[in-house]
Amino acid sequence: MKKDLTVPMDVRFADLDMYGHVNSTTFFTYMETARVKLFMDTFQELTKRGVLLVVVSAECNYKKEIFLNDKVFVTVSLDKVGNTSFDLKYDIHNGEGKIFAVGKTTLVAIDAKKKMPMQLPEEVLNMAKNE
Amino acid sequence: MKKDLTVPMDVRFADLDMYGHVNSTTFFTYMETARVKLFMDTFQELTKRGVLLVVVSAECNYKKEIFLNDKVFVTVSLDKVGNTSFDLKYDIHNGEGKIFAVGKTTLVAIDAKKKMPMQLPEEVLNMAKNE
Amino acid sequence: MKKDLTVPMDVRFADLDMYGHVNSTTFFTYMETARVKLFMDTFQELTKRGVLLVVVSAECNYKKEIFLNDKVFVTVSLDKVGNTSFDLKYDIHNGEGKIFAVGKTTLVAIDAKKKMPMQLPEEVLNMAKNE
Amino acid sequence: MKKDLTVPMDVRFADLDMYGHVNSTTFFTYMETARVKLFMDTFQELTKRGVLLVVVSAECNYKKEIFLNDKVFVTVSLDKVGNTSFDLKYDIHNGEGKIFAVGKTTLVAIDAKKKMPMQLPEEVLNMAKNE
Repeated sequence: MKKDLTVPMDVRFADLDMYGHVNSTTFFTYMETARVKLFMDTFQELTKRGVLLVVVSAECNYKKEIFLNDKVFVTVSLDKVGNTSFDLKYDIHNGEGKIFAVGKTTLVAIDAKKKMPMQLPEEVLNMAKNE
Repeated sequence: MKKDLTVPMDVRFADLDMYGHVNSTTFFTYMETARVKLFMDTFQELTKRGVLLVVVSAECNYKKEIFLNDKVFVTVSLDKVGNTSFDLKYDIHNGEGKIFAVGKTTLVAIDAKKKMPMQLPEEVLNMAKNE
Repeated sequence: MKKDLTVPMDVRFADLDMYGHVNSTTFFTYMETARVKLFMDTFQELTKRGVLLVVVSAECNYKKEIFLNDKVFVTVSLDKVGNTSFDLKYDIHNGEGKIFAVGKTTLVAIDAKKKMPMQLPEEVLNMAKNE
Repeated sequence: MKKDLTVPMDVRFADLDMYGHVNSTTFFTYMETARVKLFMDTFQELTKRGVLLVVVSAECNYKKEIFLNDKVFVTVSLDKVGNTSFDLKYDIHNGEGKIFAVGKTTLVAIDAKKKMPMQLPEEVLNMAKNE
Protein backbone atom coordinates (compact mmCIF):
# COMPACT_ATOMS: atom_id res chain seq x y z
CA MET A 1 0.00 0.00 0.00
CA LYS A 2 1.17 3.47 -0.86
CA LYS A 3 2.19 5.87 1.88
CA ASP A 4 0.37 8.83 0.42
CA LEU A 5 -2.13 9.72 -2.23
CA THR A 6 -3.29 12.93 -3.89
CA VAL A 7 -6.93 12.98 -4.81
CA PRO A 8 -8.69 15.67 -6.87
CA MET A 9 -11.86 16.84 -5.18
CA ASP A 10 -14.79 18.10 -7.23
CA VAL A 11 -16.40 20.99 -5.36
CA ARG A 12 -20.17 20.56 -5.48
CA PHE A 13 -22.73 23.33 -5.09
CA ALA A 14 -24.05 21.24 -2.17
CA ASP A 15 -20.70 21.71 -0.40
CA LEU A 16 -21.30 25.45 -0.06
CA ASP A 17 -23.07 27.03 2.87
CA MET A 18 -24.95 30.31 3.06
CA TYR A 19 -21.65 32.23 3.00
CA GLY A 20 -21.03 30.92 -0.51
CA HIS A 21 -17.90 29.01 0.48
CA VAL A 22 -17.33 25.34 1.25
CA ASN A 23 -18.71 24.69 4.71
CA SER A 24 -16.14 23.97 7.42
CA THR A 25 -17.59 20.52 8.14
CA THR A 26 -17.27 19.57 4.46
CA PHE A 27 -13.49 19.78 4.78
CA PHE A 28 -13.77 16.62 6.90
CA THR A 29 -15.78 14.98 4.12
CA TYR A 30 -12.99 15.87 1.70
CA MET A 31 -10.46 14.25 4.06
CA GLU A 32 -12.64 11.17 4.44
CA THR A 33 -13.02 10.86 0.68
CA ALA A 34 -9.24 10.87 0.24
CA ARG A 35 -8.67 8.47 3.15
CA VAL A 36 -11.14 5.96 1.76
CA LYS A 37 -9.36 6.05 -1.60
CA LEU A 38 -5.99 5.50 0.10
CA PHE A 39 -7.33 2.42 1.85
CA MET A 40 -9.57 1.20 -0.97
CA ASP A 41 -7.61 -1.96 -1.83
CA THR A 42 -6.53 -2.75 1.72
CA PHE A 43 -10.01 -2.19 3.00
CA GLN A 44 -11.70 -5.23 1.46
CA GLU A 45 -8.87 -7.49 2.61
CA LEU A 46 -9.09 -6.10 6.17
CA THR A 47 -12.87 -6.41 6.24
CA LYS A 48 -12.60 -10.09 5.29
CA ARG A 49 -10.27 -10.64 8.25
CA GLY A 50 -12.64 -8.76 10.56
CA VAL A 51 -10.42 -5.73 11.08
CA LEU A 52 -11.97 -2.27 11.17
CA LEU A 53 -9.99 0.96 11.00
CA VAL A 54 -11.83 3.52 13.07
CA VAL A 55 -11.31 7.28 13.43
CA VAL A 56 -10.82 8.20 17.10
CA SER A 57 -9.99 11.84 16.57
CA ALA A 58 -10.08 14.38 13.75
CA GLU A 59 -8.97 17.95 13.43
CA CYS A 60 -8.70 20.63 10.80
CA ASN A 61 -6.94 23.96 10.65
CA TYR A 62 -8.53 26.27 8.14
CA LYS A 63 -6.30 28.63 6.15
CA LYS A 64 -8.27 29.82 3.12
CA GLU A 65 -11.86 29.66 1.94
CA ILE A 66 -12.74 27.27 -0.88
CA PHE A 67 -15.13 28.54 -3.55
CA LEU A 68 -17.14 26.69 -6.19
CA ASN A 69 -14.65 27.32 -8.97
CA ASP A 70 -11.52 26.42 -7.01
CA LYS A 71 -9.37 23.50 -8.03
CA VAL A 72 -9.03 21.33 -4.96
CA PHE A 73 -6.81 18.38 -4.14
CA VAL A 74 -6.39 16.41 -0.95
CA THR A 75 -3.01 14.87 -0.24
CA VAL A 76 -3.35 12.27 2.48
CA SER A 77 -0.20 10.74 3.95
CA LEU A 78 0.87 8.50 6.77
CA ASP A 79 2.24 10.66 9.54
CA LYS A 80 3.01 8.50 12.54
CA VAL A 81 2.56 4.82 13.36
CA GLY A 82 2.32 3.48 16.89
CA ASN A 83 1.40 0.01 18.12
CA THR A 84 -2.33 0.52 18.35
CA SER A 85 -2.94 3.78 16.50
CA PHE A 86 -1.68 5.71 13.52
CA ASP A 87 -2.03 9.28 12.28
CA LEU A 88 -2.90 10.43 8.79
CA LYS A 89 -2.34 14.00 7.80
CA TYR A 90 -4.10 15.88 5.06
CA ASP A 91 -3.20 18.87 2.95
CA ILE A 92 -6.15 20.42 1.18
CA HIS A 93 -4.64 22.54 -1.57
CA ASN A 94 -5.06 23.81 -5.12
CA GLY A 95 -2.14 21.90 -6.62
CA GLU A 96 -0.19 25.13 -7.08
CA GLY A 97 0.98 25.93 -3.60
CA LYS A 98 -2.17 27.42 -2.11
CA ILE A 99 -3.11 25.60 1.09
CA PHE A 100 -6.80 25.72 2.03
CA ALA A 101 -6.47 23.62 5.18
CA VAL A 102 -4.35 21.10 7.03
CA GLY A 103 -5.93 18.22 8.89
CA LYS A 104 -5.13 15.14 10.93
CA THR A 105 -6.98 12.00 11.93
CA THR A 106 -5.92 9.32 14.39
CA LEU A 107 -7.15 5.82 13.64
CA VAL A 108 -7.11 2.58 15.58
CA ALA A 109 -7.67 -1.00 14.52
CA ILE A 110 -10.70 -2.74 16.00
CA ASP A 111 -11.38 -6.46 16.08
CA ALA A 112 -14.87 -6.47 14.57
CA LYS A 113 -15.97 -9.61 16.46
CA LYS A 114 -14.63 -8.77 19.90
CA LYS A 115 -15.35 -5.03 19.44
CA MET A 116 -11.95 -4.45 21.03
CA PRO A 117 -8.84 -2.51 19.95
CA MET A 118 -6.14 -4.72 18.45
CA GLN A 119 -2.61 -4.42 17.10
CA LEU A 120 -2.35 -2.52 13.83
CA PRO A 121 -2.51 -4.88 10.85
CA GLU A 122 0.60 -5.57 8.81
CA GLU A 123 -0.76 -3.57 5.88
CA VAL A 124 -0.67 -0.38 7.92
CA LEU A 125 2.70 -1.12 9.50
CA ASN A 126 4.12 -1.74 6.02
CA MET A 127 2.93 1.66 4.82
CA ALA A 128 5.56 3.28 7.02
CA LYS A 129 8.34 1.44 5.18
CA ASN A 130 7.33 2.61 1.70
CA GLU A 131 9.21 5.72 0.69
CA MET B 1 -48.42 0.10 11.92
CA LYS B 2 -49.88 3.56 11.69
CA LYS B 3 -51.06 4.92 8.37
CA ASP B 4 -49.47 8.31 8.81
CA LEU B 5 -47.07 10.17 11.03
CA THR B 6 -46.17 13.80 11.63
CA VAL B 7 -42.53 14.40 12.45
CA PRO B 8 -41.00 17.71 13.56
CA MET B 9 -37.90 18.54 11.56
CA ASP B 10 -35.09 20.55 13.08
CA VAL B 11 -33.68 22.84 10.40
CA ARG B 12 -29.88 22.74 10.60
CA PHE B 13 -27.52 25.43 9.36
CA ALA B 14 -26.04 22.65 7.19
CA ASP B 15 -29.38 22.30 5.40
CA LEU B 16 -29.06 25.79 3.93
CA ASP B 17 -27.38 26.52 0.64
CA MET B 18 -25.75 29.72 -0.57
CA TYR B 19 -29.16 31.31 -1.08
CA GLY B 20 -29.73 31.11 2.67
CA HIS B 21 -32.70 28.77 2.38
CA VAL B 22 -32.99 25.01 2.77
CA ASN B 23 -31.52 23.41 -0.33
CA SER B 24 -34.02 21.74 -2.67
CA THR B 25 -32.29 18.35 -2.31
CA THR B 26 -32.60 18.55 1.48
CA PHE B 27 -36.40 18.38 1.16
CA PHE B 28 -35.86 14.75 0.11
CA THR B 29 -33.77 14.19 3.23
CA TYR B 30 -36.64 15.57 5.29
CA MET B 31 -39.01 13.14 3.59
CA GLU B 32 -36.60 10.25 4.14
CA THR B 33 -36.25 11.15 7.81
CA ALA B 34 -40.03 11.01 8.26
CA ARG B 35 -40.39 7.81 6.23
CA VAL B 36 -37.76 6.02 8.30
CA LYS B 37 -39.58 7.01 11.49
CA LEU B 38 -42.89 5.74 10.09
CA PHE B 39 -41.32 2.36 9.36
CA MET B 40 -39.03 2.22 12.39
CA ASP B 41 -40.75 -0.65 14.19
CA THR B 42 -41.75 -2.58 11.07
CA PHE B 43 -38.30 -2.19 9.64
CA GLN B 44 -36.40 -4.47 12.01
CA GLU B 45 -39.04 -7.16 11.63
CA LEU B 46 -38.89 -6.94 7.83
CA THR B 47 -35.10 -6.97 7.80
CA LYS B 48 -35.12 -10.19 9.83
CA ARG B 49 -37.37 -11.80 7.22
CA GLY B 50 -35.13 -10.58 4.40
CA VAL B 51 -37.54 -7.99 3.03
CA LEU B 52 -36.25 -4.62 1.86
CA LEU B 53 -38.44 -1.64 1.05
CA VAL B 54 -36.77 0.29 -1.72
CA VAL B 55 -37.56 3.70 -3.21
CA VAL B 56 -38.06 3.43 -6.98
CA SER B 57 -39.18 6.98 -7.58
CA ALA B 58 -39.29 10.24 -5.67
CA GLU B 59 -40.67 13.65 -6.47
CA CYS B 60 -41.14 16.99 -4.77
CA ASN B 61 -43.17 20.07 -5.64
CA TYR B 62 -41.76 23.15 -3.96
CA LYS B 63 -44.19 25.83 -2.79
CA LYS B 64 -42.34 28.03 -0.28
CA GLU B 65 -38.77 28.50 0.85
CA ILE B 66 -37.73 27.16 4.25
CA PHE B 67 -35.47 29.35 6.38
CA LEU B 68 -33.37 28.55 9.43
CA ASN B 69 -35.93 29.84 11.91
CA ASP B 70 -38.96 28.15 10.35
CA LYS B 71 -40.90 25.53 12.26
CA VAL B 72 -41.05 22.51 10.00
CA PHE B 73 -43.04 19.30 10.15
CA VAL B 74 -43.28 16.42 7.72
CA THR B 75 -46.53 14.51 7.55
CA VAL B 76 -45.99 11.23 5.76
CA SER B 77 -48.98 9.09 4.87
CA LEU B 78 -49.86 6.03 2.88
CA ASP B 79 -51.38 7.13 -0.39
CA LYS B 80 -51.94 4.09 -2.57
CA VAL B 81 -51.19 0.40 -2.22
CA GLY B 82 -50.83 -1.95 -5.17
CA ASN B 83 -49.64 -5.55 -5.29
CA THR B 84 -45.97 -4.88 -5.71
CA SER B 85 -45.62 -1.17 -4.96
CA PHE B 86 -47.04 1.50 -2.70
CA ASP B 87 -46.97 5.28 -2.63
CA LEU B 88 -46.23 7.52 0.31
CA LYS B 89 -47.04 11.17 0.17
CA TYR B 90 -45.46 13.92 2.21
CA ASP B 91 -46.60 17.32 3.29
CA ILE B 92 -43.79 19.55 4.48
CA HIS B 93 -45.48 22.30 6.45
CA ASN B 94 -45.20 24.62 9.44
CA GLY B 95 -47.99 23.08 11.49
CA GLU B 96 -50.16 26.13 10.96
CA GLY B 97 -51.35 25.73 7.42
CA LYS B 98 -48.31 26.91 5.50
CA ILE B 99 -47.20 24.26 3.00
CA PHE B 100 -43.52 24.36 2.03
CA ALA B 101 -43.65 21.39 -0.32
CA VAL B 102 -45.57 18.28 -1.29
CA GLY B 103 -43.76 15.09 -2.20
CA LYS B 104 -44.31 11.49 -3.18
CA THR B 105 -42.24 8.32 -3.20
CA THR B 106 -43.06 4.96 -4.70
CA LEU B 107 -41.59 1.95 -2.92
CA VAL B 108 -41.37 -1.72 -3.77
CA ALA B 109 -40.57 -4.74 -1.67
CA ILE B 110 -37.41 -6.65 -2.58
CA ASP B 111 -36.46 -10.14 -1.52
CA ALA B 112 -33.00 -9.45 -0.13
CA LYS B 113 -31.67 -12.92 -0.98
CA LYS B 114 -33.00 -13.27 -4.52
CA LYS B 115 -32.57 -9.55 -5.20
CA MET B 116 -36.00 -9.71 -6.86
CA PRO B 117 -39.24 -7.78 -6.39
CA MET B 118 -41.78 -9.60 -4.25
CA GLN B 119 -45.35 -9.14 -3.02
CA LEU B 120 -45.79 -6.40 -0.49
CA PRO B 121 -45.47 -7.70 3.08
CA GLU B 122 -48.56 -7.95 5.27
CA GLU B 123 -47.37 -5.03 7.43
CA VAL B 124 -47.67 -2.65 4.51
CA LEU B 125 -50.97 -4.08 3.28
CA ASN B 126 -52.38 -3.70 6.78
CA MET B 127 -51.45 -0.02 6.88
CA ALA B 128 -54.17 0.67 4.33
CA LYS B 129 -56.80 -0.73 6.67
CA ASN B 130 -55.96 1.51 9.61
CA GLU B 131 -58.08 4.60 9.63
CA MET C 1 -24.99 28.36 -23.78
CA LYS C 2 -24.88 24.67 -24.54
CA LYS C 3 -28.05 22.62 -24.62
CA ASP C 4 -26.61 19.71 -22.69
CA LEU C 5 -23.59 18.74 -20.67
CA THR C 6 -22.12 15.48 -19.39
CA VAL C 7 -20.41 15.76 -16.04
CA PRO C 8 -18.37 13.03 -14.33
CA MET C 9 -19.45 12.52 -10.74
CA ASP C 10 -16.98 11.34 -8.13
CA VAL C 11 -18.77 8.99 -5.75
CA ARG C 12 -17.78 9.87 -2.18
CA PHE C 13 -17.93 7.54 0.79
CA ALA C 14 -20.22 10.19 2.33
CA ASP C 15 -22.74 9.60 -0.49
CA LEU C 16 -23.38 6.05 0.73
CA ASP C 17 -26.02 5.17 3.28
CA MET C 18 -26.20 2.21 5.63
CA TYR C 19 -27.10 -0.08 2.73
CA GLY C 20 -23.68 0.58 1.23
CA HIS C 21 -25.09 2.22 -1.90
CA VAL C 22 -25.51 5.86 -2.84
CA ASN C 23 -28.48 7.21 -0.92
CA SER C 24 -31.56 8.01 -2.97
CA THR C 25 -31.51 11.67 -1.94
CA THR C 26 -27.91 12.01 -3.15
CA PHE C 27 -29.10 11.38 -6.73
CA PHE C 28 -30.68 14.83 -6.50
CA THR C 29 -27.35 16.27 -5.37
CA TYR C 30 -25.73 14.69 -8.43
CA MET C 31 -28.37 16.31 -10.64
CA GLU C 32 -27.89 19.66 -8.93
CA THR C 33 -24.12 19.44 -9.38
CA ALA C 34 -24.54 18.88 -13.12
CA ARG C 35 -27.18 21.59 -13.45
CA VAL C 36 -24.98 24.16 -11.72
CA LYS C 37 -22.14 23.34 -14.12
CA LEU C 38 -24.46 23.70 -17.13
CA PHE C 39 -25.46 27.17 -15.95
CA MET C 40 -22.10 28.22 -14.54
CA ASP C 41 -21.31 30.93 -17.09
CA THR C 42 -24.88 32.12 -17.55
CA PHE C 43 -25.43 32.20 -13.84
CA GLN C 44 -23.18 35.14 -12.99
CA GLU C 45 -24.66 37.17 -15.83
CA LEU C 46 -28.22 36.40 -14.68
CA THR C 47 -27.40 37.17 -11.07
CA LYS C 48 -26.10 40.59 -12.11
CA ARG C 49 -29.40 41.29 -13.83
CA GLY C 50 -31.36 40.12 -10.78
CA VAL C 51 -32.71 36.94 -12.35
CA LEU C 52 -32.88 33.77 -10.29
CA LEU C 53 -33.55 30.33 -11.75
CA VAL C 54 -35.48 28.37 -9.15
CA VAL C 55 -36.41 24.67 -9.01
CA VAL C 56 -40.18 24.30 -8.59
CA SER C 57 -40.30 20.52 -8.95
CA ALA C 58 -37.86 17.63 -9.05
CA GLU C 59 -38.24 13.94 -9.63
CA CYS C 60 -36.06 10.87 -10.00
CA ASN C 61 -36.74 7.35 -11.24
CA TYR C 62 -34.23 4.91 -9.84
CA LYS C 63 -33.11 2.01 -12.05
CA LYS C 64 -29.87 0.62 -10.56
CA GLU C 65 -27.93 1.05 -7.36
CA ILE C 66 -24.71 3.08 -7.42
CA PHE C 67 -21.75 1.72 -5.45
CA LEU C 68 -18.53 3.38 -4.34
CA ASN C 69 -16.47 2.02 -7.22
CA ASP C 70 -18.94 2.81 -9.98
CA LYS C 71 -18.07 5.25 -12.72
CA VAL C 72 -20.84 7.81 -12.75
CA PHE C 73 -21.76 10.56 -15.19
CA VAL C 74 -24.70 12.92 -15.26
CA THR C 75 -25.95 14.11 -18.61
CA VAL C 76 -28.19 17.13 -18.14
CA SER C 77 -30.11 18.45 -21.11
CA LEU C 78 -32.80 20.94 -21.92
CA ASP C 79 -36.05 19.08 -22.37
CA LYS C 80 -38.85 21.56 -22.86
CA VAL C 81 -39.10 25.33 -22.81
CA GLY C 82 -42.30 27.22 -22.07
CA ASN C 83 -42.87 30.92 -21.47
CA THR C 84 -42.33 30.94 -17.75
CA SER C 85 -40.78 27.53 -17.02
CA PHE C 86 -38.41 25.02 -18.55
CA ASP C 87 -37.58 21.38 -17.91
CA LEU C 88 -34.16 19.83 -17.58
CA LYS C 89 -33.77 16.10 -17.77
CA TYR C 90 -30.95 14.07 -16.35
CA ASP C 91 -29.50 10.70 -17.18
CA ILE C 92 -27.31 9.29 -14.45
CA HIS C 93 -25.25 6.59 -16.14
CA ASN C 94 -21.88 4.86 -16.24
CA GLY C 95 -20.83 6.14 -19.68
CA GLU C 96 -21.23 2.67 -21.16
CA GLY C 97 -24.95 2.26 -21.48
CA LYS C 98 -25.88 1.44 -17.89
CA ILE C 99 -28.55 3.83 -16.62
CA PHE C 100 -28.65 4.31 -12.83
CA ALA C 101 -31.51 6.80 -12.84
CA VAL C 102 -33.45 9.28 -14.90
CA GLY C 103 -34.56 12.59 -13.43
CA LYS C 104 -36.32 15.81 -14.28
CA THR C 105 -36.50 19.28 -12.77
CA THR C 106 -38.78 22.16 -13.69
CA LEU C 107 -37.35 25.62 -13.20
CA VAL C 108 -38.82 29.08 -13.34
CA ALA C 109 -37.24 32.51 -13.57
CA ILE C 110 -37.78 34.80 -10.63
CA ASP C 111 -37.26 38.53 -10.52
CA ALA C 112 -35.02 38.76 -7.45
CA LYS C 113 -36.21 42.24 -6.50
CA LYS C 114 -39.94 41.77 -6.96
CA LYS C 115 -39.78 38.16 -5.78
CA MET C 116 -42.15 37.40 -8.67
CA PRO C 117 -42.04 34.96 -11.59
CA MET C 118 -40.91 36.55 -14.84
CA GLN C 119 -40.44 35.60 -18.48
CA LEU C 120 -37.56 33.23 -19.12
CA PRO C 121 -34.35 35.11 -19.91
CA GLU C 122 -32.98 35.07 -23.45
CA GLU C 123 -30.09 32.82 -22.41
CA VAL C 124 -32.50 30.02 -21.59
CA LEU C 125 -34.67 30.57 -24.66
CA ASN C 126 -31.54 30.46 -26.82
CA MET C 127 -30.52 27.09 -25.38
CA ALA C 128 -33.45 25.51 -27.21
CA LYS C 129 -32.07 26.69 -30.56
CA ASN C 130 -28.63 25.12 -30.12
CA GLU C 131 -28.47 21.66 -31.65
CA MET D 1 -25.85 36.08 25.55
CA LYS D 2 -25.75 32.80 27.42
CA LYS D 3 -22.44 31.12 28.07
CA ASP D 4 -23.64 27.67 27.17
CA LEU D 5 -26.54 25.91 25.57
CA THR D 6 -27.76 22.33 25.37
CA VAL D 7 -29.44 21.43 22.12
CA PRO D 8 -31.26 18.16 21.36
CA MET D 9 -30.10 16.66 18.09
CA ASP D 10 -32.45 14.58 16.00
CA VAL D 11 -30.45 11.75 14.42
CA ARG D 12 -31.46 11.42 10.78
CA PHE D 13 -31.12 8.30 8.65
CA ALA D 14 -29.00 10.49 6.35
CA ASP D 15 -26.49 10.98 9.19
CA LEU D 16 -25.57 7.29 9.11
CA ASP D 17 -22.84 5.87 6.93
CA MET D 18 -22.44 2.35 5.59
CA TYR D 19 -21.39 1.13 9.04
CA GLY D 20 -24.87 1.98 10.30
CA HIS D 21 -23.64 4.58 12.78
CA VAL D 22 -23.49 8.36 12.56
CA ASN D 23 -20.60 9.26 10.28
CA SER D 24 -17.60 10.87 11.95
CA THR D 25 -17.90 14.02 9.85
CA THR D 26 -21.52 14.45 10.92
CA PHE D 27 -20.35 15.05 14.51
CA PHE D 28 -19.02 18.37 13.22
CA THR D 29 -22.42 19.14 11.73
CA TYR D 30 -23.96 18.46 15.15
CA MET D 31 -21.47 20.88 16.73
CA GLU D 32 -22.18 23.49 14.07
CA THR D 33 -25.92 23.14 14.61
CA ALA D 34 -25.52 23.80 18.33
CA ARG D 35 -23.09 26.67 17.79
CA VAL D 36 -25.44 28.42 15.38
CA LYS D 37 -28.25 28.16 17.94
CA LEU D 38 -26.00 29.58 20.66
CA PHE D 39 -25.24 32.60 18.48
CA MET D 40 -28.65 32.91 16.84
CA ASP D 41 -29.65 36.20 18.44
CA THR D 42 -26.19 37.73 18.48
CA PHE D 43 -25.59 36.70 14.92
CA GLN D 44 -28.02 39.07 13.22
CA GLU D 45 -26.75 41.98 15.29
CA LEU D 46 -23.13 41.14 14.40
CA THR D 47 -23.94 40.70 10.72
CA LYS D 48 -25.51 44.18 10.67
CA ARG D 49 -22.28 45.62 12.06
CA GLY D 50 -20.21 43.70 9.50
CA VAL D 51 -18.65 41.30 11.96
CA LEU D 52 -18.23 37.65 10.99
CA LEU D 53 -17.33 34.89 13.42
CA VAL D 54 -15.25 32.36 11.53
CA VAL D 55 -14.05 28.89 12.52
CA VAL D 56 -10.27 28.64 12.21
CA SER D 57 -9.87 25.20 13.70
CA ALA D 58 -12.10 22.32 14.70
CA GLU D 59 -11.45 19.01 16.39
CA CYS D 60 -13.41 16.07 17.70
CA ASN D 61 -12.50 13.16 19.94
CA TYR D 62 -14.81 10.22 19.39
CA LYS D 63 -15.76 8.08 22.40
CA LYS D 64 -18.84 6.06 21.45
CA GLU D 65 -20.78 5.35 18.29
CA ILE D 66 -24.14 7.07 17.77
CA PHE D 67 -26.96 4.95 16.34
CA LEU D 68 -30.29 5.96 14.80
CA ASN D 69 -32.27 5.39 17.98
CA ASP D 70 -29.90 7.17 20.34
CA LYS D 71 -30.99 10.26 22.20
CA VAL D 72 -28.40 12.90 21.43
CA PHE D 73 -27.71 16.33 22.89
CA VAL D 74 -24.95 18.80 22.20
CA THR D 75 -23.83 21.06 25.02
CA VAL D 76 -21.80 23.93 23.62
CA SER D 77 -20.02 26.25 26.02
CA LEU D 78 -17.53 29.05 26.01
CA ASP D 79 -14.15 27.65 26.95
CA LYS D 80 -11.57 30.35 26.59
CA VAL D 81 -11.58 33.94 25.41
CA GLY D 82 -8.53 35.76 24.09
CA ASN D 83 -8.23 39.13 22.36
CA THR D 84 -8.72 37.93 18.83
CA SER D 85 -9.99 34.37 19.23
CA PHE D 86 -12.19 32.28 21.46
CA ASP D 87 -12.75 28.58 21.99
CA LEU D 88 -16.04 26.76 22.20
CA LYS D 89 -16.17 23.25 23.52
CA TYR D 90 -18.82 20.68 22.81
CA ASP D 91 -20.05 17.64 24.65
CA ILE D 92 -22.08 15.30 22.51
CA HIS D 93 -23.98 13.11 24.96
CA ASN D 94 -27.23 11.26 25.64
CA GLY D 95 -28.37 13.44 28.54
CA GLU D 96 -27.76 10.63 30.99
CA GLY D 97 -24.03 10.60 31.35
CA LYS D 98 -23.00 8.79 28.22
CA ILE D 99 -20.49 10.87 26.24
CA PHE D 100 -20.38 10.18 22.50
CA ALA D 101 -17.70 12.74 21.71
CA VAL D 102 -15.95 15.87 22.89
CA GLY D 103 -15.08 18.64 20.46
CA LYS D 104 -13.57 22.09 20.24
CA THR D 105 -13.62 24.94 17.75
CA THR D 106 -11.56 28.10 17.72
CA LEU D 107 -13.24 31.13 16.20
CA VAL D 108 -12.01 34.58 15.26
CA ALA D 109 -13.84 37.77 14.45
CA ILE D 110 -13.43 39.09 10.93
CA ASP D 111 -14.22 42.56 9.69
CA ALA D 112 -16.42 41.64 6.72
CA LYS D 113 -15.48 44.76 4.74
CA LYS D 114 -11.73 44.73 5.27
CA LYS D 115 -11.62 40.92 5.27
CA MET D 116 -9.23 41.25 8.22
CA PRO D 117 -9.20 39.84 11.76
CA MET D 118 -10.46 42.27 14.36
CA GLN D 119 -10.94 42.45 18.13
CA LEU D 120 -13.65 40.18 19.48
CA PRO D 121 -16.99 41.97 19.70
CA GLU D 122 -18.40 42.94 23.09
CA GLU D 123 -21.11 40.27 22.81
CA VAL D 124 -18.50 37.52 22.88
CA LEU D 125 -16.40 39.15 25.61
CA ASN D 126 -19.54 39.47 27.72
CA MET D 127 -20.28 35.77 27.42
CA ALA D 128 -17.27 35.06 29.60
CA LYS D 129 -18.78 37.09 32.43
CA ASN D 130 -22.08 35.24 32.54
CA GLU D 131 -22.00 32.44 35.03
